[in-house]
Amino acid sequence: MKLCRFQPLQPGSDPRSSVEHRQNPAARRLGDDAARYGMIDNERVFEIAEPFRRIEQTGTSWPLAGVKLLPPCQPSKIVCVGRNYKAHAAELGNDLPTEPLIFLKPPSAIIAPNDPIVLTRSSERVDFEGELAIVIGKTCARLKTSEDIKPYVLGYTCLNDVTARDLQIRDVQFTRAKSFDTFCPFGPVIETGLDPATATVETFLNTKRRQSARVTEMIFPVDVIIRWISQVMTLLPGDVIATGTPSGVGPLADGDMVEVSVGGVGTLRNPVRAPQ
Amino acid sequence: MKLCRFQPLQPGSDPRSSVEHRQNPAARRLGDDAARYGMIDNERVFEIAEPFRRIEQTGTSWPLAGVKLLPPCQPSKIVCVGRNYKAHAAELGNDLPTEPLIFLKPPSAIIAPNDPIVLTRSSERVDFEGELAIVIGKTCARLKTSEDIKPYVLGYTCLNDVTARDLQIRDVQFTRAKSFDTFCPFGPVIETGLDPATATVETFLNTKRRQSARVTEMIFPVDVIIRWISQVMTLLPGDVIATGTPSGVGPLADGDMVEVSVGGVGTLRNPVRAPQ
Repeated sequence: MKLCRFQPLQPGSDPRSSVEHRQNPAARRLGDDAARYGMIDNERVFEIAEPFRRIEQTGTSWPLAGVKLLPPCQPSKIVCVGRNYKAHAAELGNDLPTEPLIFLKPPSAIIAPNDPIVLTRSSERVDFEGELAIVIGKTCARLKTSEDIKPYVLGYTCLNDVTARDLQIRDVQFTRAKSFDTFCPFGPVIETGLDPATATVETFLNTKRRQSARVTEMIFPVDVIIRWISQVMTLLPGDVIATGTPSGVGPLADGDMVEVSVGGVGTLRNPVRAPQ
Repeated sequence: MKLCRFQPLQPGSDPRSSVEHRQNPAARRLGDDAARYGMIDNERVFEIAEPFRRIEQTGTSWPLAGVKLLPPCQPSKIVCVGRNYKAHAAELGNDLPTEPLIFLKPPSAIIAPNDPIVLTRSSERVDFEGELAIVIGKTCARLKTSEDIKPYVLGYTCLNDVTARDLQIRDVQFTRAKSFDTFCPFGPVIETGLDPATATVETFLNTKRRQSARVTEMIFPVDVIIRWISQVMTLLPGDVIATGTPSGVGPLADGDMVEVSVGGVGTLRNPVRAPQ
């Protein structure tokens, strides 16, 4: 199932904003101007009340072309894993980690699919980093090694961990380099049925493939990452974990189009703009 | 003015939960079980609708002893400045920074005044770091060097940037060491009238003073920090900036009581517990 968050492009044009719809309690819980959650099927968006408890349709739907897709959830935190693909650790001259290396991106860096990544005058090299991201579905803390992670995962999405490479090297701490506004596009949807063991991550810059890996090439797989992070911090519904980028990272320039594709999820597409 | 968030200890005991109170629109906007915002004066808590637009009293008040103080706001992000006092940079063997060094703590690490800091089995040395923290009052991004920061600041509070020192050194990235649940006590109040230029920061471990500095000893002062961070990321109402810790950091042990005092704000007091 493909879940999304969206706003209708023309709020008045709802083909079914009828008495029937307004009488549905799930629909009434949503403000009229609010971002809505939805389920995408056959080029239509079926509105749902919320994705974390029980997928309950409100009875309203829009053609996919009639909505603006928003970031598919609103994480209270974005936890990222660094150097999780052997070839990427090597391309930046780093040793292989013996346990996951984590850092955080602030929610203020989030942008929607198709929204522009805006470069910064503070950096001379802003790179794309295409990644598989996990979306947490249920609060979890201190998971045991034997514990199944599936009940805690809502699904999977694509994330571009945009990074000011020069600042990352200069600061040593990754935070500034990874935290500029617009440096965290993710989406376009959360796929609830993906088996991460079979997934692939690819990044295309101006339609040319620049990154490509199977998720099985990760040093720390999805279940290990979730259990390990849950030892440190409580993960909440909607929290996002970016699982690391494969080799092939490279710089973005004004006018570029960058696409992160996760097989079975979809493609996250963002144009790139120079700062105003 | 001292602002707080709180829950009445006995919800039914509200001395003025009268028709008058329920008819007040500011009071009606709050759910009955919700955390409430308040203003503390003369040992009483006067409920307010919210602290970011206009301080509007709902007409209800409680004795200060009749409420549980919560973290005084709910930041979407906590940005911390590292090595901002010369003597602290030296005590950890670091060079003085030439520009602010920032990192993030996750909101899941926040605890209230008087709530226990829980140590972790992952670390053999968990340190206190007492700090002055800024609470943002109004959205700000890309502030100019000449711009006055006052309109963007709601006020100031105390924050304990609890840190697993061994993990901080081992990981190089600060994130894991700073992100364990309970590692971000802040409060007890937001003082809106503080002049940070005259403030002092002190930390007491079991009543013994261990850190003491004037805020003017900071390498990057409050206005420089806010403007600098605003170049990277948009700051939102309720976001918290921890301004760095003075020298004198030291380890916490089960049974300790740690207190961070900022002159003119108050004292943030937290007991320390071993992990369960």
